[in-house]
Amino acid sequence: MNRFSFSLLIIMMITLGLKAQNKQDMEKRIDEILSQLTLEEKVAMCHAQSKFSSPGVPRLGIPEIWMSDGPHGVRGEINWDNWGYAGWTNDSITAFPALTCLAATFNPALSYAYGVAIGEEARYRKKDILLGPGVNIYRTPLNGRNFEYMGEDPLLASEMVVPYIKGVQRNGVAACVKHYALNNQEHWRGHIDVHVSDRALHEIYLPAFKAAVKEGGVWAIMGAYNQFRGQHTTHHKMLIKDVLKGDWGFDGVVVSDWGSAHDTKEAALYGLDIEMGSWTNGLTSSIDLAYDNYYLAKPFLKMLKNNEIKTSMLDDKVRRILRLMLRTNMASSRSFGCANNQEHAQVARNVARDGIVLLKNENDFFPLDSNKKMRIAVIGENATRSLTVGGGSSELKAKYEISPLEGIKKRFANATILYSMGYASGPSAYGKEIPSKLDADSLVQAAVEVAEKADLVLYVGGLNKNHHQDCEGDDRKHFELPFGQNELIAKLLKVNANLGVVLVSGNAVAMPWLADCKALIQSWYNGSEAGNALADIIAGDVSPSGKLPYSYPVQLSDNAAHHFGMLSYPGDSIKQVYKEDILVGYRWHDTKKIKPLFAFGYGLSYTKFDILDIRADKKNYSPDDVIRVMCRTKNKGEVDGAEVIQVYVGKHKSKVDRAVKELKGFKKVYLKTSQEKNVQIDIPVSKLAYYDESISDWKLEKGSYLLYVGNSSDHIVYKQKITID
Amino acid sequence: MNRFSFSLLIIMMITLGLKAQNKQDMEKRIDEILSQLTLEEKVAMCHAQSKFSSPGVPRLGIPEIWMSDGPHGVRGEINWDNWGYAGWTNDSITAFPALTCLAATFNPALSYAYGVAIGEEARYRKKDILLGPGVNIYRTPLNGRNFEYMGEDPLLASEMVVPYIKGVQRNGVAACVKHYALNNQEHWRGHIDVHVSDRALHEIYLPAFKAAVKEGGVWAIMGAYNQFRGQHTTHHKMLIKDVLKGDWGFDGVVVSDWGSAHDTKEAALYGLDIEMGSWTNGLTSSIDLAYDNYYLAKPFLKMLKNNEIKTSMLDDKVRRILRLMLRTNMASSRSFGCANNQEHAQVARNVARDGIVLLKNENDFFPLDSNKKMRIAVIGENATRSLTVGGGSSELKAKYEISPLEGIKKRFANATILYSMGYASGPSAYGKEIPSKLDADSLVQAAVEVAEKADLVLYVGGLNKNHHQDCEGDDRKHFELPFGQNELIAKLLKVNANLGVVLVSGNAVAMPWLADCKALIQSWYNGSEAGNALADIIAGDVSPSGKLPYSYPVQLSDNAAHHFGMLSYPGDSIKQVYKEDILVGYRWHDTKKIKPLFAFGYGLSYTKFDILDIRADKKNYSPDDVIRVMCRTKNKGEVDGAEVIQVYVGKHKSKVDRAVKELKGFKKVYLKTSQEKNVQIDIPVSKLAYYDESISDWKLEKGSYLLYVGNSSDHIVYKQKITID
Repeated sequence: MNRFSFSLLIIMMITLGLKAQNKQDMEKRIDEILSQLTLEEKVAMCHAQSKFSSPGVPRLGIPEIWMSDGPHGVRGEINWDNWGYAGWTNDSITAFPALTCLAATFNPALSYAYGVAIGEEARYRKKDILLGPGVNIYRTPLNGRNFEYMGEDPLLASEMVVPYIKGVQRNGVAACVKHYALNNQEHWRGHIDVHVSDRALHEIYLPAFKAAVKEGGVWAIMGAYNQFRGQHTTHHKMLIKDVLKGDWGFDGVVVSDWGSAHDTKEAALYGLDIEMGSWTNGLTSSIDLAYDNYYLAKPFLKMLKNNEIKTSMLDDKVRRILRLMLRTNMASSRSFGCANNQEHAQVARNVARDGIVLLKNENDFFPLDSNKKMRIAVIGENATRSLTVGGGSSELKAKYEISPLEGIKKRFANATILYSMGYASGPSAYGKEIPSKLDADSLVQAAVEVAEKADLVLYVGGLNKNHHQDCEGDDRKHFELPFGQNELIAKLLKVNANLGVVLVSGNAVAMPWLADCKALIQSWYNGSEAGNALADIIAGDVSPSGKLPYSYPVQLSDNAAHHFGMLSYPGDSIKQVYKEDILVGYRWHDTKKIKPLFAFGYGLSYTKFDILDIRADKKNYSPDDVIRVMCRTKNKGEVDGAEVIQVYVGKHKSKVDRAVKELKGFKKVYLKTSQEKNVQIDIPVSKLAYYDESISDWKLEKGSYLLYVGNSSDHIVYKQKITID
Repeated sequence: MNRFSFSLLIIMMITLGLKAQNKQDMEKRIDEILSQLTLEEKVAMCHAQSKFSSPGVPRLGIPEIWMSDGPHGVRGEINWDNWGYAGWTNDSITAFPALTCLAATFNPALSYAYGVAIGEEARYRKKDILLGPGVNIYRTPLNGRNFEYMGEDPLLASEMVVPYIKGVQRNGVAACVKHYALNNQEHWRGHIDVHVSDRALHEIYLPAFKAAVKEGGVWAIMGAYNQFRGQHTTHHKMLIKDVLKGDWGFDGVVVSDWGSAHDTKEAALYGLDIEMGSWTNGLTSSIDLAYDNYYLAKPFLKMLKNNEIKTSMLDDKVRRILRLMLRTNMASSRSFGCANNQEHAQVARNVARDGIVLLKNENDFFPLDSNKKMRIAVIGENATRSLTVGGGSSELKAKYEISPLEGIKKRFANATILYSMGYASGPSAYGKEIPSKLDADSLVQAAVEVAEKADLVLYVGGLNKNHHQDCEGDDRKHFELPFGQNELIAKLLKVNANLGVVLVSGNAVAMPWLADCKALIQSWYNGSEAGNALADIIAGDVSPSGKLPYSYPVQLSDNAAHHFGMLSYPGDSIKQVYKEDILVGYRWHDTKKIKPLFAFGYGLSYTKFDILDIRADKKNYSPDDVIRVMCRTKNKGEVDGAEVIQVYVGKHKSKVDRAVKELKGFKKVYLKTSQEKNVQIDIPVSKLAYYDESISDWKLEKGSYLLYVGNSSDHIVYKQKITID
């Protein structure tokens, strides 16, 4: 050992020692505080006092915990005990792109920047827990809340959630990963009983949560509304007690979803730490709904006093709550945070333009030449509609929101921009009527007239945040574009075939007009900088580099969950069975050879890349090895751009059913014109294990595997056999 | 110099060096921040964004400033931009005794404890500025807000305000001394133009503010509603620019009273730093009242842009605001505060029982023997009425409030306690009707019947927090006890002469029944522990030791302000002239030989004290000397108690008119039975100076002075001539 490495060892020993010391100090402090608390004070800490806060212990100076939705920005201030907005004027914030967009960037460094920025805004707004991010797996394109999540692949969601958490928590604000677990649809979410195999649970639905805990070190996790095998997930023995807090060693706080707790004893025993409420408004006039009557309030206290529940159960919860406090609002030092700054706007814009996906681009329709004096018809409600409003708990009060139309107008100052709405969805509020047939027809007519006059048409439509669209609380009713958009697009195409489509959504939709349009951009709910980022892409200031984080089926029945009929989705109103098991998303399309409309990982660029000299470092690996996949990537086109190198692994001959291939690694490479870079993607051999239900543990099968390298799940440019000995 | 003192010197040098360094660091940091702010951001910091907050700079992480009423406890949460309560349930606090009570303790150590405790509660409630204490001088017993202040004597108010500030600010919470200046009545407070001599201003009305700044180091001061010599005090050239920020070197923030600013240019030039609003509700529907239209908002920005006001004026304000932030919400470390703890309750109780004043005690009526099985009739609304509610901005949402009746019932468990209300004042809200004559008569009748049956009567009445009583916004209409109490007491006395009176008020009242009652206690608005503290006194657990902080005239015309008629009080609706000049309170009674009903500094005990061997250390002093007054005090009674040794100084032959004597020092001495202590009171000779209007400065007259030592302003036990050479 030379002197340098010896010093390094000493430093490492000291650092580790300090960490252990800090952890010991923290636990000691928790013990000291705990010993001073009365039974009543401890119980009080386990449930809400208002819509978004839980009490501290005033006499001892233990602070309250203040929480806020949500994953894409810090929500506006809500009244103390009802859902009305409090009418504050200091709660406008930066709206960041929805998490589908973040996932589509395939760039963990952007996720970290996103986490830092949103964490700074939460800190400035004096929040101790940010209720996000969401990592429920995209199982069906009808799920109203997919837009808040990170797509269909557990590895992608894992790689993206970890840096987000670290970014948020750097500010002394806890991230709260949600919704644990299996909350993969909104329809019947409050009670639907999910049945899924242990293997699919561990391989598909839990990995992102596990990564959040074990790699992200997340300080809070939110339980879900639904049931799993007959027990509510918010106080689920297996999910929380055995897996989360047992196997994974989670030392943070489990927060209920708002009103997702249903049983005092289960909540007490199976690891719910803080019960929050939704319909439970704390009104004294409605005694059943008062905060005092929450499952973890008086009923909990009573059971504790009657020795029906051991005090040690309570103490464990309070320890966790105090631990979260010592990491956040009782931390020895925290930054002040900040909000609405240029840096945050830039993060929002960077994520948006890195996440927008170019799906079709016939004859290089995009980018449009901004120097040209042309007439551009922008058609579609989403070109002007606020898409930070609505959608449920993730609704935001954005300081500003650049619409696609604004962004285009600003960037294409030399062009004449005509605008027509084309369709109208009505206001964002739940249950409101959409416009009458007569009104709808006249909107179509007006749009057709505008399209006729233009050199080209940019259609900006998609879904929105209304009920039964991309919105919490219920699912979409069908796979089609709503509000008569398919008919509208068909009519526009008749008068002007030079038409590009920009879909704004958080879900896949049917596209009967796809063959007829010249180009297609999948954009997302991109927040404050939505229009600027879209203009960046359309004008070619930035080459598109987003990749789809979920598969687009041609038709709904091509999706695995829907293939198996009603009991699979949405269930029989009591329960549902995930019959597709592990074959979610591209795993299903690949394995069943059902060609998707657009595949997972797919996305075009304005430039072309070569992926050369692809190779694994070895042919044979032992279980502890790391597979090192290397290649050279070159930008051979005329503009700068970025490509995502994706490595999938499959095993054809296996003891168990397998997907043809599964994503095991990826890297986004930014290349200037003619630039070339070496890329290396490391895959620990242990990641090739499957979950063996017979031993309730992961098992690594030996033998031959196939590596697939490509730039989408359906565009593999290289395969190599490797062997695990 | 020996080694020890050398080390000490080094330590002192280092400490002073560090302080200077810290101050330099702070100013440097302020410069750094200031250089990053835009004109608009700076202007925004100079006015409210809501009822109780002013904005920070979100993009830079500069926090908002949150303020709260008031001097006696941290007020409940108010809506964003109207005066309704926000309906939170986490904002109940410890109600501390009103400041008249604190002043009556004559105990600066209790004031420090009070400041620490209320500061801890403010900190726990996340407030950056506590809007108190109030040190306006008690000029007339009709002033509706006297109960929030510290009496009629500038020295007493000064000695009491300094430790309060230090206690509050220890928590990283700014005290905000109010209302600067000459806000000595509520009637016409918004515009009345006060005319008073420079001498009375400096000798009577400003000393407590000066002490707050120069000795207390207060970080904020609140401007007042009224005018002084034709200019609003909130942006007064002489008061703020010349005196406060000039002569006294105040480096903190001047906050307007809510709606007390009236002119942009004056506010800009004469030192208002943050404009807060009262009627200005920030409603966008009422454009004139929007926060943006405050004097220090858009109109200020406009004048800055037009160069009608120099940017340096703005920068000075922002520097002060940032300085306050670096001391509070941007301090490198702050405690978490705490609230509603046993220690705070104990502070409230200690202050209350040290401040309650025993004014009459015929045949040792008090204390009552708690072992005796007797029938005690408790009569009077104040025995049960909440007196933390009402009164204006100092209204509190007390976690609990022990009423006098509760306190007495608990302490006199062996007695039979009968209660009758006797009179009713109606609800606390402004303008509500009092009960009808018929109801009032029946209440009297019921009370008389109860009194008849009892062995003794405790009458608990006085004023309350209703409009036109002890309440912000207007003055009392007369000097009498309201609600028919004089007639009631007379009737009670007829059926039971064994009657003691407990007056709860913050003002002197006429007492036509004084000769007929057996005993009289002056209690105060004593907050959460009011009843317990009163029971402590009544049962003799604690011997009364409070001293009146203001004089009780026999009739209103005996008071100096009222002696001179309407132009003196309340003014002619436009202006008023303080014709009594420096002769406020006991200075008037003494000098004009008008015997008060009860004198300033007066208060009885259950025990007796000797004040022996009184002497000044010398007969001749030079201007830089300190007069050291010494004595021995002995408790010669049978119970423990406390006495306040008071030293007054007068000058008979003077170039200027003088009061016969003025309080120049005091000390409260706690003595067990038979205990004796040496007392020393130091008076710097410089404190004997008067304000010489001809040179606009303090001037020390040489020659002979008379020292008066006693235990009240009208009970002097020793006089000594001294000479200043």
